[in-house]
Amino acid sequence: MRIMPASKFSLKREVEYGSPEQNESVRRIIEEVRRDGDAALRRFAQQFDGVRVDELRVTKEEIEAAYNEVDEEFLSAIRAAAVNIRKFHEKQMRSSWMDLQADGTILGQVIRPLRRVGLYVPGGKAAYPSSVLMNAIPAQVAGVPEIVMVTPPATAGAVGINPHILVAAAEAGVGEIYRVGGAQAVAALAYGTESIRAADKIVGPGNIYVALAKRYVFGAVDIDSIAGPSEIVVLADDSADPAYVAADLLSQAEHDEMASAILITTSEPLAEAVRAEVERQLNELPRREIAARSIRDYGAILTVSDLEEGIDAVNRLAPEHLEIIVREPFQYLSRIENAGAIFLGPYSSEPVGDYFAGPNHVLPTNGTARFSSPLNVDDFIKKSSVIYYSKEALLRDGGQIISLARHEGLDAHARAIQIRLEKEGNTRG
Amino acid sequence: MRIMPASKFSLKREVEYGSPEQNESVRRIIEEVRRDGDAALRRFAQQFDGVRVDELRVTKEEIEAAYNEVDEEFLSAIRAAAVNIRKFHEKQMRSSWMDLQADGTILGQVIRPLRRVGLYVPGGKAAYPSSVLMNAIPAQVAGVPEIVMVTPPATAGAVGINPHILVAAAEAGVGEIYRVGGAQAVAALAYGTESIRAADKIVGPGNIYVALAKRYVFGAVDIDSIAGPSEIVVLADDSADPAYVAADLLSQAEHDEMASAILITTSEPLAEAVRAEVERQLNELPRREIAARSIRDYGAILTVSDLEEGIDAVNRLAPEHLEIIVREPFQYLSRIENAGAIFLGPYSSEPVGDYFAGPNHVLPTNGTARFSSPLNVDDFIKKSSVIYYSKEALLRDGGQIISLARHEGLDAHARAIQIRLEKEGNTRG
Repeated sequence: MRIMPASKFSLKREVEYGSPEQNESVRRIIEEVRRDGDAALRRFAQQFDGVRVDELRVTKEEIEAAYNEVDEEFLSAIRAAAVNIRKFHEKQMRSSWMDLQADGTILGQVIRPLRRVGLYVPGGKAAYPSSVLMNAIPAQVAGVPEIVMVTPPATAGAVGINPHILVAAAEAGVGEIYRVGGAQAVAALAYGTESIRAADKIVGPGNIYVALAKRYVFGAVDIDSIAGPSEIVVLADDSADPAYVAADLLSQAEHDEMASAILITTSEPLAEAVRAEVERQLNELPRREIAARSIRDYGAILTVSDLEEGIDAVNRLAPEHLEIIVREPFQYLSRIENAGAIFLGPYSSEPVGDYFAGPNHVLPTNGTARFSSPLNVDDFIKKSSVIYYSKEALLRDGGQIISLARHEGLDAHARAIQIRLEKEGNTRG
Repeated sequence: MRIMPASKFSLKREVEYGSPEQNESVRRIIEEVRRDGDAALRRFAQQFDGVRVDELRVTKEEIEAAYNEVDEEFLSAIRAAAVNIRKFHEKQMRSSWMDLQADGTILGQVIRPLRRVGLYVPGGKAAYPSSVLMNAIPAQVAGVPEIVMVTPPATAGAVGINPHILVAAAEAGVGEIYRVGGAQAVAALAYGTESIRAADKIVGPGNIYVALAKRYVFGAVDIDSIAGPSEIVVLADDSADPAYVAADLLSQAEHDEMASAILITTSEPLAEAVRAEVERQLNELPRREIAARSIRDYGAILTVSDLEEGIDAVNRLAPEHLEIIVREPFQYLSRIENAGAIFLGPYSSEPVGDYFAGPNHVLPTNGTARFSSPLNVDDFIKKSSVIYYSKEALLRDGGQIISLARHEGLDAHARAIQIRLEKEGNTRG
């Protein structure tokens, strides 16, 4: 792992937007689903997943049967995590409000849940039950009445879906599940088919085809942000345990070869010790090839002269995950401008947040924490403004409204007010 | 204006994504600005605006001088509007929160303003001072410390910018203004030049080149939603004044040939009377050609058997603006699921909201009110999650976290917890 001054480092990773061939393939799949509906979904399941799908919807019995296939330890852990996630997201809820004015005018903001949200869940090895909770629970807390899940069927098994995924969905309150994946699943959620009604928003991770399909249908429906390569930054002083720091860096690096794990520290001895620990721990990891590439290509240990300089480097990097392992970490919190999730102190290891504590693990990646937020309840609501103007207020303000409209050359706007002032003003005079 | 049953109507308008040539032209402009900085901005000003720009930044003296060019009536109206807009948006503010748990754990959500926001303001006839207020004030209320405006210089005049725009900017607290427009201005805000530092988000309306440029730079910076063709729906019973309804429909129709103005009513006599009024009032409008095309192509009067059916039609259309001009309009408010802004009663004419009442006039268009909201303070903040796990909590929950990580095959995640349990558990025992 490279050790260098923070001032010399910048993180550059290209985000993938797909080849022209991939984009064209996605376009074609989506248009076929729009045209042929369920028949296209079955055709693509055969073609891409190698699976013959008769019944698209997963039955209640199949979901119940999944509970018999997962062990008690998993069930108890996923239930405890769901309780924490629900509790945290409930604190994000907001109410509609009304502002009553003395002249009888009422202004307000109405908050409503989206009606129908589609959740994409990848199949195979990237099937993460924790992601099901993290995507579904905020929607459920927001009050979304219809949450529907799509996930590709595997070749093996009657149900064809990982039972841990089905159990996580059931625990998160998702009962409407379809055996369909890839760009065709996104198309079904965006435009609807005979079996799957269109949704208002599509969330959840997926491969490049799923990401391109979400980008393609955006506008017809809303989508979440498309996840890029992710990061952890650990900001540490000499009080940090190098073994903990190394383990946390590696827990990010094992995700993906483009993931980035960076230590920023005021301590030269810690820098050296973490470098040694990373090498040592790396060799023990089942996913050491992925982690080693990530560390080699996008990992770094950055030295700074003081924590102020370290915080500047953090804000420049705007990491998805930030751990602050220093004495009195809270004293630096207010200076952190850009970070998706901030983990304070030696016991707040990143996996605590990935799985369990309650905050969402869907976070802004690749520097977008400068302007983006963790997935949250606001992503599943919409607002409407309410304007009830009283006659008194219109007679008082009408002249100014007309003046502004005329200055913009929008005469019909002015006339809509004028016609009322003429009629209503007269009835008074 | 066509009169037809609501069940027979659907609104279809294609959103423009630009021709391949336009997209290529935008890409080329953006890459030239990235490469050549200010020199490219000056070159494009000459080429596209026909203006030689020496000093890119508008001086304080030029802004002060603009006040001498606007009349007192305009100044007083824009100030009154700004007060109302600020007051409404202040009610959207939210605080960071912390959730303290019995075991010493602290979970929280930190709210922070974006650091730097760029506001695009079109030049020429589409220069709307009200849009400057509507885009800048929510950012200012959110606490954004740097709000920067870009607007194309006109051929005529030393300053080259409409004084009403400069005054509106100054009243909204925007002092950093540059004479640059088009895709090149978007590029400067996204990537920075010698004179213009890069922003975190770009908002504001613009022509097709500006829209395509915003789409192109999205990811490097955040953008607001790209406005499509807009709508008004008036839901009225026989108590509505046909002259008011017609005037309000026309105030939307005059914006744009693709704008849509729709009356939904339970009253056949009102339908006929509004049709006659629209024809009569249309002839008086300076912008009658635009309004007539809008009414012809995208206008309609829809008859319904009762208000329930009318509300279903409203929710299907998900209009940008909805007026409810019926007896006791508030009794229907809770059933409106999809609308950007809802105007209740006969005195809440749409221009009241466009200019003055306080709620934002930047609203979800073209049916996106199903999942989008009016521009608001949340668009200028970002959230970070905070996790401070106590040692006690980690020792208690660690086993479950490890179990979940192992079930997902993420061994390094499990080890980051395990290594702590081993060390910290030991110090206890």
